[in-house]
Amino acid sequence: MKIAVDAMGGDHAPEIVIEAAVNAVNQLDVEIILVGNQEKITQKLATYTYPKDKLHIVHTAVEILNEDKPSDVVRSKKDASMFMGLAMVKQKQADAFVSAGNTGALLMGALLFVGRIKGVDRPTLAPLMPNDKQGSLLTDAGANVQCRPQHLVQFGEMGTIYMQKVMGIQSPSVGLINIGAEQEKGTDLTKEAYQLMQKAKFRFVGNVEARDIPKGDVDVLVCDGFVGNVLLKFLEGLGMTFYQNVKNIFKSSKVGMFAALLLKKQLTAFKKKLDYSEQGGAPFLGIDGVVIKAHGSSDAKAFYHAIRQAKVFAQTGVNEEIKIRFS
Amino acid sequence: MKIAVDAMGGDHAPEIVIEAAVNAVNQLDVEIILVGNQEKITQKLATYTYPKDKLHIVHTAVEILNEDKPSDVVRSKKDASMFMGLAMVKQKQADAFVSAGNTGALLMGALLFVGRIKGVDRPTLAPLMPNDKQGSLLTDAGANVQCRPQHLVQFGEMGTIYMQKVMGIQSPSVGLINIGAEQEKGTDLTKEAYQLMQKAKFRFVGNVEARDIPKGDVDVLVCDGFVGNVLLKFLEGLGMTFYQNVKNIFKSSKVGMFAALLLKKQLTAFKKKLDYSEQGGAPFLGIDGVVIKAHGSSDAKAFYHAIRQAKVFAQTGVNEEIKIRFS
Repeated sequence: MKIAVDAMGGDHAPEIVIEAAVNAVNQLDVEIILVGNQEKITQKLATYTYPKDKLHIVHTAVEILNEDKPSDVVRSKKDASMFMGLAMVKQKQADAFVSAGNTGALLMGALLFVGRIKGVDRPTLAPLMPNDKQGSLLTDAGANVQCRPQHLVQFGEMGTIYMQKVMGIQSPSVGLINIGAEQEKGTDLTKEAYQLMQKAKFRFVGNVEARDIPKGDVDVLVCDGFVGNVLLKFLEGLGMTFYQNVKNIFKSSKVGMFAALLLKKQLTAFKKKLDYSEQGGAPFLGIDGVVIKAHGSSDAKAFYHAIRQAKVFAQTGVNEEIKIRFS
Repeated sequence: MKIAVDAMGGDHAPEIVIEAAVNAVNQLDVEIILVGNQEKITQKLATYTYPKDKLHIVHTAVEILNEDKPSDVVRSKKDASMFMGLAMVKQKQADAFVSAGNTGALLMGALLFVGRIKGVDRPTLAPLMPNDKQGSLLTDAGANVQCRPQHLVQFGEMGTIYMQKVMGIQSPSVGLINIGAEQEKGTDLTKEAYQLMQKAKFRFVGNVEARDIPKGDVDVLVCDGFVGNVLLKFLEGLGMTFYQNVKNIFKSSKVGMFAALLLKKQLTAFKKKLDYSEQGGAPFLGIDGVVIKAHGSSDAKAFYHAIRQAKVFAQTGVNEEIKIRFS
């Protein structure tokens, strides 16, 4: 299996991408195509040991900058590493593509250069939200800020397939994020979506109130991209704040500092749990190819997990199943 | 000043309401009117010492049940303690009303029995969201699940006045909860609200991403009631989960348990910080009378704080200022 990765996307590119790619070819039985600035990549690669025939470089000097608008660059910078990688998926030169670059550009690029699966109205960005259990798939997390009820139903369908194939859950539960448990609660959007979901071909378990999200009892959480994005970012911000508060408690006294040393392992595990970037990447579901968005602040380990996730996504035939169900 | 309280509303009524009322007449220089079942109230009151001339009882045997629909009870149970208390505010027999009862019923009751301030399109439920600073006013937290841009502007205006008068902040900052910092981000609602807020008479500081909410840099956070309700409940759920996780870290070893004993004070403070019910009550802004919603799970201390808040609300002339600005 060949996986293309965007060597230039993300806060710590290309270094962490290259490190992750090396680890992937060493451990995952995949070939990696690093798309990006050949000179920079070669320099960094020289410091690693890896099977040379499994790691390829496709050169481009075009870079997407932070200030670039996604809607502009998809047209003006077709030779950026991100779009070249997407084109390779379209042309079957790669089985999957992973990028830690700009989310909006990646979505627009995926739509333009790879395209939607027939029958899917709106591809969705669906990260795994960490919780006290194995995580819940949040769909949509920001790709579609305004949705119609039918879109939410499709998110539920695609999320179900992903959780079946990639996470091995036989009959994933699907919940609608809402402001009350009762059917008649919420906006016109949630009320209509509730009606449609009752008739859908997945295991709909009704409304989920946000206070119950951390319990992790529901496998697929459906909402529009505005609400999903707000939830995900709030979790990120609260995680940081909570962790800082806990750190301060330990720092507040000598015995606390002593305890912190002895509890170091548990505290580190707690910190990781709070950090959703640790969960690998977020798949775009509904795109006619495997495209994984790694978190912008990914370290090498997180990016490696995103590559592994791309492999599982491609191997387990998520898209083939979506095609069958949406045809 | 006379404050009416709903003796029968909330998870722990009437006990905690009565305890809070006794503390209020003993400490706050207010008179309290307990509205509810006289027999139950008298029984419980007998165990306390307080100035008898400052605590009054208005009897009603009608109770709002958990299964009652707000839209039904406002018509069928006009003699419930909640609605009698609201009517007393309307008739100026009380300067304020505090209830820990059903939020939907309280909102509908406030609209029907007290009424809106002229010029206010949609009264808003505006709790103080806890954060690392003094808290941010969240408006709307669920009273208006679907909003027009002009409603959000009014929430910003009323929130500003509340933070000035009650919290003593001279020039409160107002932010629009959105999925990006840039003006063009978000839904039609947020884009139009952004435009209007730039011309509004409060200190608009632009969009606020949810990851920045816990920092507490913005005094008034504006969003529609669906998003606000989701945020508030997510915070509640995460707070519980986080605290449980921290507890587990301490419980994981003997030294951890020892440290927990020594850090008890800080841990208790941390727990309180996570609990937004500790912040007193949430005011309804835009109602032509002072109505405070105490959290359903309030203990006596939280309910006491809500009474104190009602007093400050009434004393500082929040509604008089709203009337001037909206006339």
